[in-house]
Order: sequence, then C-alpha cells, then structure tokens
Amino acid sequence: MDTQSERLLAFMIHNARIAALGTIRDEAPRVSMVAFVPAADFSAFYVHVSRLAQHTVDMQKNRQVSLMISETDDGRDDPQTLARISIHASAVFMENGEPGYAPVKNQYIERFPHSAPLFKLADFGLWRIKPKGARYIAGFAKAYNLSPETLQKISKK
Amino acid sequence: MDTQSERLLAFMIHNARIAALGTIRDEAPRVSMVAFVPAADFSAFYVHVSRLAQHTVDMQKNRQVSLMISETDDGRDDPQTLARISIHASAVFMENGEPGYAPVKNQYIERFPHSAPLFKLADFGLWRIKPKGARYIAGFAKAYNLSPETLQKISKK
Repeated sequence: MDTQSERLLAFMIHNARIAALGTIRDEAPRVSMVAFVPAADFSAFYVHVSRLAQHTVDMQKNRQVSLMISETDDGRDDPQTLARISIHASAVFMENGEPGYAPVKNQYIERFPHSAPLFKLADFGLWRIKPKGARYIAGFAKAYNLSPETLQKISKK
Repeated sequence: MDTQSERLLAFMIHNARIAALGTIRDEAPRVSMVAFVPAADFSAFYVHVSRLAQHTVDMQKNRQVSLMISETDDGRDDPQTLARISIHASAVFMENGEPGYAPVKNQYIERFPHSAPLFKLADFGLWRIKPKGARYIAGFAKAYNLSPETLQKISKK
C-alpha cells in the first residue's frame, strides 16, 4: 500500500466519531450507527451502548460484528472515491472495573462529553470490538485486505 | 411520530448519497459503503455494484441485507443526536432491460455522473433493495419501528 493511503486510513480512524456497526439478528444483518473511540494502536475499538438497544441485544447473542468507518461525504463529484474501512471483529462486553476499563471510559468521555452521565446508568456498558481482519477501500478500485497486525502498524502513520 | 421527525427522515433519505450496506458472509455480518438512489416513494433503494465486489458476492448467496442511512457528522457536540435509519431488506438483482431498469439507470447516472461508463461494463449491475421494515432513530432516545407502508407515507413529507 502506498504511504498516502496508509496516512489517509490512520487519519480517518483517529478522527471519525461515528461508525456503522453490523450485527446479526435472526440470521440477517442489521446495521446501526455508533459513536466509537479507537485504541491508539487500532488493536480495538470501543462503543458505549445501552442494554436496551437492539445492536446490544444482537451482540449478546452473537459476538460477530462488523464496523465500517468512512470519510464524511464532502459533496465531491464521485462519492465512490471516499475512503472507508470495513473491519470484521468480535465484540466483548467489558466489566466495569476490569483492567483497561477506566482508561477507555476516560477516553470515551473526553471524546463524547455528553456520554458522561450515561456511564452512571446501569443499562449502559462498554464493549471492546477486536478486529479479526479488515478491507480498506482507499478510493475507487484501490482495495486492500488488512490483518490486525497491519492495521496496528498503520496506526503509527 | 412528530412532523419534524418525519420531515427530517424524508429530507435525509432524499439527500444522502451514501449508505452503509450490511451483508452476510460466512454467517457473520459485513458492512460496506455504497452509493445509492431511493425510489421517489421509498419503496426501494438502488445500488450499482461490481460483480467482483465482496458485498455483491454476499448478496448473490444471501439476499438478506440491511441499509443504514445517517445524517452526515457535522461536528455537533453530541453525535448520538444524528438521525439515522436502519432498513432491513431483501436485495434482488435487476436484469438489464427488465421493466423499471432504464428509469433507475437514468436516475442513478443523473445523481452519480461518474457511474455512466460503469453501466457499459459487463461486471456492474443494479440491485433493488426492498425494505421489509426499518428502525428510525430521530435523535437520542427517539426511536421508531417503521413498516414499509409508513416509510412510503413519509416520502411525501
């Protein structure tokens, strides 16, 4: 992959606030919107969701998820040139107080100050989304399959 | 649903150019980005995709899809208030020349002029995505389940 595509991906993941989360319900796909924060090295992605939300119910039943992060549509002539990455992953619920919980909570609240009161509600929880692989489309006809290790290397670009 | 939320949904669907498409691969969800056009009455959504693309291979094997359309992240304080709709649907390949093909092709090219040459390539095709139902989040804690009939009524708002 060229350096420009690597830098674009690192910038996009570090700066995006929302992603499309794919879950399974009744053996069919469902896509919802989530606010997320990435681990600094892209080894994981974190979402803070209500137990009452449909995607949370889905993740409780089936840990297989997909997270798609894309450039914002800036009105350019051809939106097919917008960069995007589709990460396939496993979702794991984080227990309040488990190692790593507090730093992620702090990072999440720093990014999304409106979420602070939700951390006090019993029905909201953090989930860790661990990449198993990804497909990165850097623009039209520029597609790459990425391992979790490659994704981590790109986080430094 | 209040009129403001209905109008927001109609505006969002009529004006968005990209959506997140959920498909199934190996019993797991995959989310990719697609450029789409809606039928004027929201009874269907159309995408023009390459037979070589992974989501197309997925749809050929399993017609169950999900299409999520969201407001663009405008940098507001709380992105959880961005409106979005998650449509669960069936995807059906459209044969070139079948009734309805030409108007959709023309609508698609009018919206995405860069796609015009792709309509001449054998490996690109139009798919019709037919809603079975939808969940509309008009903002934080404002969620509605919509039938295809309700979605069609909202298209006129």
